[in-house]
Amino acid sequence: MALLADLQAAFEPGRVVVPEHIHSRHRSDWGVALADDEQPAALVYACNAGDVSRALEICGRYDCAVVAQGGLTGLTGAATPVDGCVIVSLERMRAIEEIDTAAATMTVEAGVALERIQQAAAEAGFFFPLDRGARGSCQIGGNIATNAGGNRVLRYGMARDLVLGLEVVLADGTVVTSLNKMQKNNAGYDIKHLFIGSEGTLGIITRVVLRLFPATTSECTALCAVSDYDAVLAFLAHAKAQLGPTLSAFEVMWPDFYRLALEAHGMRPPLDENHSAYILLDTLGTDTEADQARFEDTIASALDQGLIEDAVLAQSLADSERLWTLRGLAGEFSRVFTPRIDFDISVPIGDIGVFIERAHAGLIAQWPKARVLGWGHIADSNVHLSVSIDEQPQPLEAVERTIYALVREYGGSISAEHGIGLLKKPFLDYSRSPAEIALMQRMKQALDPAGLLNPGKVL
Amino acid sequence: MALLADLQAAFEPGRVVVPEHIHSRHRSDWGVALADDEQPAALVYACNAGDVSRALEICGRYDCAVVAQGGLTGLTGAATPVDGCVIVSLERMRAIEEIDTAAATMTVEAGVALERIQQAAAEAGFFFPLDRGARGSCQIGGNIATNAGGNRVLRYGMARDLVLGLEVVLADGTVVTSLNKMQKNNAGYDIKHLFIGSEGTLGIITRVVLRLFPATTSECTALCAVSDYDAVLAFLAHAKAQLGPTLSAFEVMWPDFYRLALEAHGMRPPLDENHSAYILLDTLGTDTEADQARFEDTIASALDQGLIEDAVLAQSLADSERLWTLRGLAGEFSRVFTPRIDFDISVPIGDIGVFIERAHAGLIAQWPKARVLGWGHIADSNVHLSVSIDEQPQPLEAVERTIYALVREYGGSISAEHGIGLLKKPFLDYSRSPAEIALMQRMKQALDPAGLLNPGKVL
Ligand SMILES: Cc1cc2nc3c(=O)[nH]c(=O)nc-3n(C[C@H](O)[C@H](O)[C@H](O)COP(=O)(O)OP(=O)(O)OC[C@H]3O[C@@H](n4cnc5c(N)ncnc54)[C@H](O)[C@@H]3O)c2cc1C
Ligand SMILES: Cc1cc2nc3c(=O)[nH]c(=O)nc-3n(C[C@H](O)[C@H](O)[C@H](O)COP(=O)(O)OP(=O)(O)OC[C@H]3O[C@@H](n4cnc5c(N)ncnc54)[C@H](O)[C@@H]3O)c2cc1C
Repeated sequence: MALLADLQAAFEPGRVVVPEHIHSRHRSDWGVALADDEQPAALVYACNAGDVSRALEICGRYDCAVVAQGGLTGLTGAATPVDGCVIVSLERMRAIEEIDTAAATMTVEAGVALERIQQAAAEAGFFFPLDRGARGSCQIGGNIATNAGGNRVLRYGMARDLVLGLEVVLADGTVVTSLNKMQKNNAGYDIKHLFIGSEGTLGIITRVVLRLFPATTSECTALCAVSDYDAVLAFLAHAKAQLGPTLSAFEVMWPDFYRLALEAHGMRPPLDENHSAYILLDTLGTDTEADQARFEDTIASALDQGLIEDAVLAQSLADSERLWTLRGLAGEFSRVFTPRIDFDISVPIGDIGVFIERAHAGLIAQWPKARVLGWGHIADSNVHLSVSIDEQPQPLEAVERTIYALVREYGGSISAEHGIGLLKKPFLDYSRSPAEIALMQRMKQALDPAGLLNPGKVL
Repeated sequence: MALLADLQAAFEPGRVVVPEHIHSRHRSDWGVALADDEQPAALVYACNAGDVSRALEICGRYDCAVVAQGGLTGLTGAATPVDGCVIVSLERMRAIEEIDTAAATMTVEAGVALERIQQAAAEAGFFFPLDRGARGSCQIGGNIATNAGGNRVLRYGMARDLVLGLEVVLADGTVVTSLNKMQKNNAGYDIKHLFIGSEGTLGIITRVVLRLFPATTSECTALCAVSDYDAVLAFLAHAKAQLGPTLSAFEVMWPDFYRLALEAHGMRPPLDENHSAYILLDTLGTDTEADQARFEDTIASALDQGLIEDAVLAQSLADSERLWTLRGLAGEFSRVFTPRIDFDISVPIGDIGVFIERAHAGLIAQWPKARVLGWGHIADSNVHLSVSIDEQPQPLEAVERTIYALVREYGGSISAEHGIGLLKKPFLDYSRSPAEIALMQRMKQALDPAGLLNPGKVL
């Protein structure tokens, strides 16, 4: 094949992998696998932007699709190869190039694993707040390409908010090096935002300048119980006002989720099982004593004012971890709640309570034995639902249409964190208007007129 | 004129102003005035997105340029009309449509003055942190179109960080309504970022969803003096580590600036005049006692560790305002430091000290009597310089080339906050590579192929 020969001629031996030798793990992310009768045409290990550029140029000549692969931990099939494509793997681009302690920035190649960035930041006396279960495998390039979220968005923002500069290779092979290190730079359009969250469809990210934060030294955790969703809202307002920007997590669990979490971990209930919702509250700060005092005050005054019905405060790191175990139930789902259908959605904060009720009612009306678990980063308007129906296979599409119709009704988003990829593409118009989608298509057309980059994803 | 007739036919009387009746204030922003022999073809008062769309459609038919005008407080000529253009004024679009207390968002029309938004937020028990001298006149649409900064960027970010959703009218008249209220929304590309900071060249913003913050109740202020720029950096790291996210301003003043500020305000020096730099430190918090204690600790330990040479803490709001008066000197420049040439630039934080020294030396080498004042939001990498040369007129271009050449050398930005407009356009390539500029041009081409929107600005 001429394409393969061109690639092999352009790269050193070992850098271009022929189809027979591409490891099967490159056939899928955590969400979608390539069909058995399809296969990629080649895999290229890029070592720098020049490599990516060369690969794209060659693919362009053959009108061959290119799919960037990071750590392959995505949940929507965004990184799954398409038939006959060239995979550009970033996994050999794992240099940490610079930590600028004065600017509080780190410059890295796109293939560095999130966990290594966290560690390098800590070693330099800083904190890099992006975090999630997949930290050991997911790459910073993939995190940025999906605008990943995670546990501390409330305080530190999404991946987008942690990026100062990017180097990107466009579909035509142009390398755009925009490794800005400054908080403020209004010299023309801020082009990095084009690529953040575009799931490899507008360019391939090769290097990144990240923001670092001062290390935090104190953490306070509590689990609180409330009587209804209005109380969740009132307690959120109270916590934000009292705790200011130290508030780093406000995680709500609905009762079915809470009960299953207790059961799955064989835990004694830290709080009674008959409340209407449970909230895991977390602060990160730099002044252990004052932070703890303020945290206790906040909980005490919430109890006094009747905002919460009960609360338990972690007295140690071990306590805190135990409370967080409850919230970590989703990581155990394959053991204790399967088969199921998962949702990662956003709904305006004020509407989440009634949204959950209506979702529940809507599912029960169709499948009386449906089990529905709800939990989420409510302060970020992000709610998760997992649904298990007593049918085999799970009636995926009907459940999705039920939930996404409600999302549409509340002006919500069908994807809070995970992106669109392949799995959510059929529902994009539940969250975006024709004009918004047309504008996205215009951007795609402008940046990748031949449609080479990750075709069929997102749009 | 057919264009004018079409506009008049499409709008009610009074909504289209003929050239003879356009008030002269529409001929310039604070930076650049339209040449005397040039004039706009008409001014349209838009009342909603539909109006903007209609105006753009009509202008499109005649290939007539369109310039959006907000509060006209821009400093770069971005909002200055071009000869024969139609001005679209947003000033009648000043409804505050909704404050959603649960979501902590405010939805407003683009023409609302910044100060009214601050007030409305405060009345609803929230805080909207964007602020600057021009707050009474500048509009939120203009703030977003220029990605404006200001005094609290360190803590709350630029205008970009405060926007959740936008409604925008594209050059072809398409209305894109994307009034997202959620922190997290990864349903496809995040199109709002295209328009933020694009200075009216890619679309006209008609409505906005803003983020609101909990009101803060405590403020602590101090003025500190240090021995050199390394000490500035060490003190910054110390302050960030100790004060965490309550730190909301870290303003550095170089000695000449400090001395002139004292003189201009006839103030007794709060600190000796023989230090190498002065730092105004500010925190905003929610716990008066604990915040004050931590603030005092931070200053005391900085003194103990020799990071700072001297400090004075504000004991009252009046004290705090007095200290801030020093920093406000720039607002008095027309009285006490004129003629002059102003710079609003960014340089990576670690390099700002040597940058200032070299800028000073470079100017003195050419103009031995040059006066150079330096100050800035150092923690955001933003430094301001004002230069006065004993020549009439000021050798503008030679001074600009001297400073911007240094900015280029340090990988800085020729515009930290104010944008590019007309005035900085000749220097864009001092901060941006040909590939970056080509990409900006590609975006312009994609969104406004006929080049109708604010032509000649930015690019
Ligand atoms: C256990 C687990 C927990 C998770 N928790 C969270 C969570 O809390 N929050 C959250 O947001 N996500 C979460 N995820 C999803 C996933 O981790 C993120 O989406 C992650 O950002 C993907 O990174 P990756 O390197 O694995 O990307 P991949 O899966 O390899 O790729 C994802 C997309 O990015 C593109 N891409 C990858 N690298 C580049 C590059 N260098 N340039 C351009 N495009 C590129 C791919 O083409 C693809 O479209 C979780 C996943 C798992 C398995
Ligand atoms: C005393 C003073 C102090 C200042 N301090 C600061 C400061 O601290 N930080 C800072 O960043 N700036 C500062 N500025 C600059 C200025 O206030 C900001 O740039 C402001 O954001 C401009 O808003 P405006 O409504 O006046 O916009 P205008 O000057 O009217 O327009 C600015 C640009 O935005 C475009 N525009 C306006 N409205 C829209 C819209 N609805 N849709 C699309 N495009 C639009 C215009 O076409 C133009 O390109 C200051 C200015 C003054 C006079």
